[in-house]
Amino acid sequence: MSGSPLALTMGDPAGVGGEITLKAWMRHHENGAKLPPFFVIGDADHLTSLASHLALPIPIKKIQTPRDTSNVFLNALPVLHTPLKTSAVFGHPCSDNASWVISTIKSAVELTQDGLARGIVTCPIAKDVLYGAGFEFPGHTEYLAHLAGEDIHPVMMLACDQLRVVLASVHVSILEAARSLSTTTIVNVAQITHQALKQDFGIANPVLAIAGLNPHAGEGGAMGDEDVDIIIPAIQQLREQGINALGPMPPDTMFTAKALPTYDAAVCMYHDQGLIPLKTLDFERGVNTTLGLPFVRTSPDHGTAFDIAGTGQASELSLIAALCMADEMVDARTGGSFGSGI
Amino acid sequence: MSGSPLALTMGDPAGVGGEITLKAWMRHHENGAKLPPFFVIGDADHLTSLASHLALPIPIKKIQTPRDTSNVFLNALPVLHTPLKTSAVFGHPCSDNASWVISTIKSAVELTQDGLARGIVTCPIAKDVLYGAGFEFPGHTEYLAHLAGEDIHPVMMLACDQLRVVLASVHVSILEAARSLSTTTIVNVAQITHQALKQDFGIANPVLAIAGLNPHAGEGGAMGDEDVDIIIPAIQQLREQGINALGPMPPDTMFTAKALPTYDAAVCMYHDQGLIPLKTLDFERGVNTTLGLPFVRTSPDHGTAFDIAGTGQASELSLIAALCMADEMVDARTGGSFGSGI
Repeated sequence: MSGSPLALTMGDPAGVGGEITLKAWMRHHENGAKLPPFFVIGDADHLTSLASHLALPIPIKKIQTPRDTSNVFLNALPVLHTPLKTSAVFGHPCSDNASWVISTIKSAVELTQDGLARGIVTCPIAKDVLYGAGFEFPGHTEYLAHLAGEDIHPVMMLACDQLRVVLASVHVSILEAARSLSTTTIVNVAQITHQALKQDFGIANPVLAIAGLNPHAGEGGAMGDEDVDIIIPAIQQLREQGINALGPMPPDTMFTAKALPTYDAAVCMYHDQGLIPLKTLDFERGVNTTLGLPFVRTSPDHGTAFDIAGTGQASELSLIAALCMADEMVDARTGGSFGSGI
Repeated sequence: MSGSPLALTMGDPAGVGGEITLKAWMRHHENGAKLPPFFVIGDADHLTSLASHLALPIPIKKIQTPRDTSNVFLNALPVLHTPLKTSAVFGHPCSDNASWVISTIKSAVELTQDGLARGIVTCPIAKDVLYGAGFEFPGHTEYLAHLAGEDIHPVMMLACDQLRVVLASVHVSILEAARSLSTTTIVNVAQITHQALKQDFGIANPVLAIAGLNPHAGEGGAMGDEDVDIIIPAIQQLREQGINALGPMPPDTMFTAKALPTYDAAVCMYHDQGLIPLKTLDFERGVNTTLGLPFVRTSPDHGTAFDIAGTGQASELSLIAALCMADEMVDARTGGSFGSGI
């Protein structure tokens, strides 16, 4: 796997996936940014037309197999051509292409499992559009876990240069996040994160900062019982397993410039507890990665951005960070880089 | 009032209040930082002894009235001497001094009301110690509102260079914050903030960013009903009153470098929603200010720090920011600076 290129799925064709893909390839070739070689699973004709529309001088080349990537990548964007069901109109997602979007993700997983791709980077999808077409998974993360075909408990990690965060709850209300918080969930998320930091990030003895739920981590029960009743027992269990878990940390001071270097990942109790500091620190270069899968998967930490799709305004920085992180994660898993032949 | 100096209360004598006061005065005189003139309401002998202990070459001078400040401030730290009840031991707060701590705050308010001080800056107190001595207010903010002697609804604002935040709930659990959220509270906090931004910060037409409660501001009810049922009606009421209120804003993207310049203050729904981004952006220079009072009051945005009190490690940057902000707020209220006679 490690000698292969990365597979990049194009995401919703009406969103910014194509544009950021083109710009990432161009930045590699024109501006000296060093990107790992990748091929796109998408519609080559759509990308050619988009490059022309955006006046980006990028040769697009259809390839027959990911193995062709190494010969092509220097001079053109390699695309494993998968024709759209219907033409894409920027900003207007179409359910006719929903099965196409899903098939590109499935393809990426199969190619990775077959050793033809070293890991997966996914451009944003529009979940509502997929739901309308019968897609039964909350998002990429759960679908990838399903395709992995094992008893997988995926954990979403968001990362930028200064901070990695994982979440004990994701897309639920604040009330539901607080009510459903459990020692088991925190322990599971922390265990998977601990394992991934060792395996995918090469950190021998990772330090996890476990956030409190309440202000000041509850001040011993003065502001909510969850920190004492739920989070402290989780930290104790983790320590008994030999995991270096700090906390419960007062949430408002755990992301300061002084605190950030003291741990490798923050285990946050709810969506915004982790995403507010991450996006405040670095909005443009955030990367979303799925831990706990048998293969490496990252994605840019933004959505389809239908409001600016096709206008040339989308930033490729998050996708570039996602490609680089996927490459480094595969290197860490396999014990070295084999992808630098280009 | 505007020609007078600022009154600075020393806070708990076992905490870092004395140390940061000495360092702030010294930085003004040695390092060229321009501070507004102030006098300390505290124990001059304690401060003299502390300066000697920390090897800070600072002359301390007892004054009889705040009017003496202008003659003294250039050459010595002016102290309106109020003897401690018992000697302070750093790191070990003593309830014997609780009434002293309270009396310095009361004094500051009286001097401000009498026109002898232009505004109040308070060093940190230890609430637990005061509670033990019968203090019946949750903190500085409520006690100051009580002393102001009117029908006051104070609002705590935290501010750094890039961001001002006010909170719809403060020291309560996450569950309680979500359960008790009301349209009335949001409207009241936003109204007082709007008025203060005009009066104390000189912003003619303030823009308020009203945060959502839930991830992505609830996505139209998909993740919690509060954004639709409670926050949107508050925004509508505010707009009907001519207040420029944006939102509900998705909490995780409202503090990015791109978003911050688009509003003057963020109205946050719970403690950590506002304090995580504030402290992540600038931990050392945060200022706490009480809006809605008939006088100006600020304080450094940190506690007594008993763990490092007396060791010389405390940073004076937040106190310096608090002194400067108080001075600017009085200027804005009175329409110009009269405090630069020194």
